Amino acid sequence: MDLGVESREKTRAMVVELSKKVKKIGEDDPRRIAHSFKVGLALTLVSVFYYVTPLFDGFGVSSMWAVLTVVVIMEYTVGGTLSKGLNRAIATLVGGALGVAAHQIAVLCGEKGEPILLGLFVFILAAAATFSRFIPEIKARYDYGVTIFILTFSLVAVSSYRVDELMQLALQRVSTIVVGVATCLCTSIFVFPVWAGEDLHKLVAADLEKLANFLEGLSTEYFAEKGEVENLESKSFLQVYTSVLNSKPTEDSLMSLARWEPGHGRFWFRHPWKQYLRIGALSRQCASSMDALATYITASPKFKPSTDPDLHLKIRKTCQEMSSESAKALKELSASIRAMTVPSSASRHASTVVATVRKLEDVLSEGKATSDVLHSATIASLLTQLVVRAREIAGSVEELARLAHFKRLDPIHEVRVKP
Amino acid sequence: MDLGVESREKTRAMVVELSKKVKKIGEDDPRRIAHSFKVGLALTLVSVFYYVTPLFDGFGVSSMWAVLTVVVIMEYTVGGTLSKGLNRAIATLVGGALGVAAHQIAVLCGEKGEPILLGLFVFILAAAATFSRFIPEIKARYDYGVTIFILTFSLVAVSSYRVDELMQLALQRVSTIVVGVATCLCTSIFVFPVWAGEDLHKLVAADLEKLANFLEGLSTEYFAEKGEVENLESKSFLQVYTSVLNSKPTEDSLMSLARWEPGHGRFWFRHPWKQYLRIGALSRQCASSMDALATYITASPKFKPSTDPDLHLKIRKTCQEMSSESAKALKELSASIRAMTVPSSASRHASTVVATVRKLEDVLSEGKATSDVLHSATIASLLTQLVVRAREIAGSVEELARLAHFKRLDPIHEVRVKP
Repeated sequence: MDLGVESREKTRAMVVELSKKVKKIGEDDPRRIAHSFKVGLALTLVSVFYYVTPLFDGFGVSSMWAVLTVVVIMEYTVGGTLSKGLNRAIATLVGGALGVAAHQIAVLCGEKGEPILLGLFVFILAAAATFSRFIPEIKARYDYGVTIFILTFSLVAVSSYRVDELMQLALQRVSTIVVGVATCLCTSIFVFPVWAGEDLHKLVAADLEKLANFLEGLSTEYFAEKGEVENLESKSFLQVYTSVLNSKPTEDSLMSLARWEPGHGRFWFRHPWKQYLRIGALSRQCASSMDALATYITASPKFKPSTDPDLHLKIRKTCQEMSSESAKALKELSASIRAMTVPSSASRHASTVVATVRKLEDVLSEGKATSDVLHSATIASLLTQLVVRAREIAGSVEELARLAHFKRLDPIHEVRVKP
Repeated sequence: MDLGVESREKTRAMVVELSKKVKKIGEDDPRRIAHSFKVGLALTLVSVFYYVTPLFDGFGVSSMWAVLTVVVIMEYTVGGTLSKGLNRAIATLVGGALGVAAHQIAVLCGEKGEPILLGLFVFILAAAATFSRFIPEIKARYDYGVTIFILTFSLVAVSSYRVDELMQLALQRVSTIVVGVATCLCTSIFVFPVWAGEDLHKLVAADLEKLANFLEGLSTEYFAEKGEVENLESKSFLQVYTSVLNSKPTEDSLMSLARWEPGHGRFWFRHPWKQYLRIGALSRQCASSMDALATYITASPKFKPSTDPDLHLKIRKTCQEMSSESAKALKELSASIRAMTVPSSASRHASTVVATVRKLEDVLSEGKATSDVLHSATIASLLTQLVVRAREIAGSVEELARLAHFKRLDPIHEVRVKP
């Protein structure tokens, strides 16, 4: 009896936890809920083929292929649905045509030769097509298409051995697949669309802001402290860059989906999506420098009461200036990507930082190599590496602004300054 | 005429390049060629259902599902095929059963209510199942299963509106899918199997060796040089760690496939695959420290003719010792993972390094803060961070050796040493 109560309690706890998790997933991104209903909607729409008798009489059991198509090609983003839909439609046409051709050749070989020849065709084409999936370019863009090609070719070639009205069947299937693809496309483009390109754009901007937050935290919570920094491990800014380190797979997949998407909102058809990957790669390098700095700061001995307080203060102030200027530059880059405007002062901030680096070198060569100065010198070197990488980011964002024709802000202000 | 020649030349160049690429892909991993033929073989085997009349009479057009199953579940690794096959088989059963149940309920509502109720069922189940794919645990292990569940449920529920012998059709489909899954499993397990677990094991060992090569190169090609190091940018060891930085997605996917695989060769069924991810994460952290060090070395001013040659030499020698000892430790860890033996001397090497770190701190506090000493001090700090992370790797490999019951080497030798 007790055991029963216990296991009921356990089940209840599990259900509560699961429902909390589900709620959080929905709240984190409400578009997920919309997507779920969109899949339900597309499937229900396509089932009309079964319910409306005149439609069913036209397509027969081939109506099944419309349902099947909707289930497998409906993806979260418009780019995903488009790439799978086009892959499926084209691969079905090509595979079907080759299958019919294989059937025509095989019947020439008589009743005994037909199955042997068909088997040979299936073996060779399936092996060749499977091997082509190992070519990275094909894997990235046409992986699903190759699967559907093998599938359609095998089904058509092999079925042809049994089916007489091959052409009619093939036409029915192709037209139901087209109906399925069209249903999915309309649902994903016109009902709360999720654009992979927009997500990529926002992700890259958000990552730059995270890098800026690290530098800002460094400046206000580490370098600004006069004495020893307390509870350093618990400071949130020391963790903020970690998600940037692992953003490569997400960025790669969003970029390969974005290429399929038509122009939408503020993005044209041939928006320079590749440039986002370059900014992303530089952001990861910058995050990697942050990792080195954060590890050094948390692991090594804290600032000790210095033997040379003046020098110590100078170094600290200079480091603070470097990180706050870099943070400003990164914040502006992130904001200008978001607003799609040309960054105006990021380069100026970056130049300020480079000037500060020189000042720091002078300051450092004044002192004696006490362990305190060495500690500061290492932090300064790591910070220098970091801000140099931040400046490279500024360059690549400016390149994006040029390629994507971002708007120029404040032309009046610029004219005013010139004379 | 000239244009024709030119475009023919161009086409020829493209064909030559493509065939070179294809040849390279095959040579890099000949198992890819084997896999392509395995897919061809499995498909040809399953087409027998169409060619042999008694078999075809038993299953009819449902034979199609065997072909379809082979095309979509045949994956490169045994784990991939197993996970997709089990997902497909179980999801088909569950989806089919629920579809039949939905049909039974719907017929109770009369001719007019039936399509409306069926449509409602499809809408709700498809939306709920799609949403469940956003839960990370389900996404990782059962993503394909959920797709097949939606597919089967919709097809069965909707078709039931038109088909009278629903049970017979469902049984035919399930049995052909089972035949397809069985064909794939036999082909992938018994014909040149590719195990995801083994690949993960080798990948982690290879990554450790790359880290060791970086440290070895540092010791022999950078710290060993007496004067300025020439052509530093062209040294290959400075690039060797970069592939480790991006190994996370590969490791994650291999690990999730390895969990499905039965025991094979030297691996038991419940081999501690998760521990490989821990070693992989530490390796990436270590590679990230290498990145910071390599960037600093290549970007900042080279060793200058020192004002204090003795101190300079001391620092250089100590750094050389640290990197060569760490390289030895990592080499041994990599070798012991490969051979599945308990690493015996890696901890000793790691301790040597820690002792050296202390020595280095003493050496550094001797000198004056000339820019030369500061430069060396920064390199020394970065190297310290790096070797500390290498020691953490030693710990996690020892944990793996314990969890996976690696063999102990040289018990005689150990006994001899004790007294």
